[in-house]
Amino acid sequence: MTATEATPERPGFHRLTLIGIGLIGSSIARGARARGLADEIVISTRRPETLERARELGLGDVYTLDPLEAVAGADCVIVSVPVGSSGAVAEMIGPGLAAGAIVSDVGSVKADVVAQMAPHLPDHVHFVPAHPVAGTEHSGPDAGFAELFDNKWCILTPPPGTDPEAVARLSAFWRALGSKVETMTPEHHDMVLAITSHIPHLIAYNIVGTAADLETVTESEVIKFSAGGFRDFTRIAASDPTMWRDVFLHNRPAVLEMLGRFIEDLFVLQRAVRFGDGETLFRQFTETRAIRRGILDIGQDTAAPDFGRTPKKG
Amino acid sequence: MTATEATPERPGFHRLTLIGIGLIGSSIARGARARGLADEIVISTRRPETLERARELGLGDVYTLDPLEAVAGADCVIVSVPVGSSGAVAEMIGPGLAAGAIVSDVGSVKADVVAQMAPHLPDHVHFVPAHPVAGTEHSGPDAGFAELFDNKWCILTPPPGTDPEAVARLSAFWRALGSKVETMTPEHHDMVLAITSHIPHLIAYNIVGTAADLETVTESEVIKFSAGGFRDFTRIAASDPTMWRDVFLHNRPAVLEMLGRFIEDLFVLQRAVRFGDGETLFRQFTETRAIRRGILDIGQDTAAPDFGRTPKKG
Ligand SMILES: NC(=O)c1ccc[n+]([C@@H]2O[C@H](COP(=O)([O-])OP(=O)(O)OC[C@H]3O[C@@H](n4cnc5c(N)ncnc54)[C@H](OP(=O)(O)O)[C@@H]3O)[C@@H](O)[C@H]2O)c1
Ligand SMILES: NC(=O)c1ccc[n+]([C@@H]2O[C@H](COP(=O)([O-])OP(=O)(O)OC[C@H]3O[C@@H](n4cnc5c(N)ncnc54)[C@H](OP(=O)(O)O)[C@@H]3O)[C@@H](O)[C@H]2O)c1
Repeated sequence: MTATEATPERPGFHRLTLIGIGLIGSSIARGARARGLADEIVISTRRPETLERARELGLGDVYTLDPLEAVAGADCVIVSVPVGSSGAVAEMIGPGLAAGAIVSDVGSVKADVVAQMAPHLPDHVHFVPAHPVAGTEHSGPDAGFAELFDNKWCILTPPPGTDPEAVARLSAFWRALGSKVETMTPEHHDMVLAITSHIPHLIAYNIVGTAADLETVTESEVIKFSAGGFRDFTRIAASDPTMWRDVFLHNRPAVLEMLGRFIEDLFVLQRAVRFGDGETLFRQFTETRAIRRGILDIGQDTAAPDFGRTPKKG
Repeated sequence: MTATEATPERPGFHRLTLIGIGLIGSSIARGARARGLADEIVISTRRPETLERARELGLGDVYTLDPLEAVAGADCVIVSVPVGSSGAVAEMIGPGLAAGAIVSDVGSVKADVVAQMAPHLPDHVHFVPAHPVAGTEHSGPDAGFAELFDNKWCILTPPPGTDPEAVARLSAFWRALGSKVETMTPEHHDMVLAITSHIPHLIAYNIVGTAADLETVTESEVIKFSAGGFRDFTRIAASDPTMWRDVFLHNRPAVLEMLGRFIEDLFVLQRAVRFGDGETLFRQFTETRAIRRGILDIGQDTAAPDFGRTPKKG
């Protein structure tokens, strides 16, 4: 069976290989299984204990520590590892990829990942980089769930000249997993995500670090009285350090650009506080509401109080 | 009936007057009603339409636009208005307060509010400032709910020499509303809240403002792809602009102190990104996890994924 045999009525793949089986990889495995999107799921990861856990969880059909063995005969290979390891993984799997296979990833950074992976991929495969804009602060194979991508966007950044049919097949796969799909250039993706995800994580990590280092306020006070806003930042700052270190090391220009603007704007607010300029504060605090309304309007969040929230899936 | 007649077995008041009936005032009204903490609830607010809405919602027993009339005969008066209006409200109610009454507030800032209110309160009342560390981004009488304070802290900042029995009665009231109670100085409160609440709000407002002003990324892209972290900041930045302007104008020294540290620390991360210093990033991203664990350990948040969260109360 080759990649082109799938009919549009039944999105999915014959042999889907997942390299990396953490939060994202295992959510793809669960979603693909639940929705019948692969005849066979092959799972490969770096550490034996992670592979063993994936097997215990029954996430796939075939388990192997050998990435070359894993990709053999696959019509789709999705790499879900920290973006700093993308190049090394592409180098390992490159020689084993079947002709016509779709090769994709899920990395939170795109231009740098494309630059890392593309040189190692043979001409006879279709490289369609992807980034599902969905996640939680948890990691590892236990953290995933089939509904993670429901109603979330997945951004594809196919290089110019990519076979449109391969792009269409991967789009159909992500749609079947529950996502909405958009296509853009890797560079634009990296700017959009720098402001909507990378800077939010950087400042969340930063304020939690600032709080931890105070002499006037103890750590236990910070913990006790976290319900006033801080708590939500600690959740974001609980995300995997390796994944996020890699994001910042591999999306440097866009992160520095957006961070520069954030700091510039923060100085305006700092000055307004210092000089008691209530008008500037009020204006800034009002203008931000339009964006919130937009997010609620398109159903990317709920307006209900978050306090005492009970998650859909525990 | 006077303030001292309440027995410890039945925390509460004979006549509880609420000045200001927004998110916090109406949550107190609902909680007090639901748990039988007042024989009579008197509600007063500035605007006729808000008073009318409170009446429609059945939040109290007596409704009046006249604050002097509202406080007459009350053994407890709780002022729940933006902190910039605390002094003006204290001035209005001062002459009508009954001897032995407990006068309290719920303001997110304490030293400045104490300085505003104390001069207008007669010697025959007990002034026990309070701050329930609980809230949502919504405001107005419709936004409140009886469970808002459940398992959250309420901080009391009684001036030196305050009657311990008055402090005990107000503590018992907040405990009966579901809160845990702690006592500290207004100045310390303001430092703790600057880092756990005020700075988080300032930077949430700031990043949403930065995002709104970009040329390279459109507002609709920011909205669409907000699930990567940004969304949680927009929720915080949807909080009431008047309330938050007042917080920053009235907690200036503590906010500037904490903001200075936040920016200093951010420069360290910025430099690490610029020079590709993965070790510094990884170390910072790891150290923050202890605080998160502490918050989960004491039950101030849940570890479950927030995506698709279903609130306890809609
Ligand atoms: N977390 C999110 O919210 C989110 C959202 C969207 C996209 N992403 C992207 O998804 C990718 C995976 O993230 P995740 O959250 O699924 O991470 P995760 O739960 O930590 O899982 C990472 C997986 O990658 C493997 N791995 C780690 N280092 C590796 C290396 N040096 N070489 C080979 N394999 C390695 C791990 O294998 P072992 O356990 O066997 O070592 C594990 O299977 C990242 O590129 C991230 O940017 C994450
Ligand atoms: N929101 C939170 O998360 C939170 C948490 C803890 C503490 N607090 C503190 O609680 C207090 C009230 O906040 P809230 O969230 O309940 O606000 P809210 O929902 O906006 O309600 C504010 C109330 O104050 C009245 N008010 C507004 N301006 C006034 C003025 N100049 N003079 C007299 N009354 C005025 C309003 O009356 P009209 O509608 O009649 O004009 C309304 O009843 C603030 O001090 C805030 O710092 C808030």
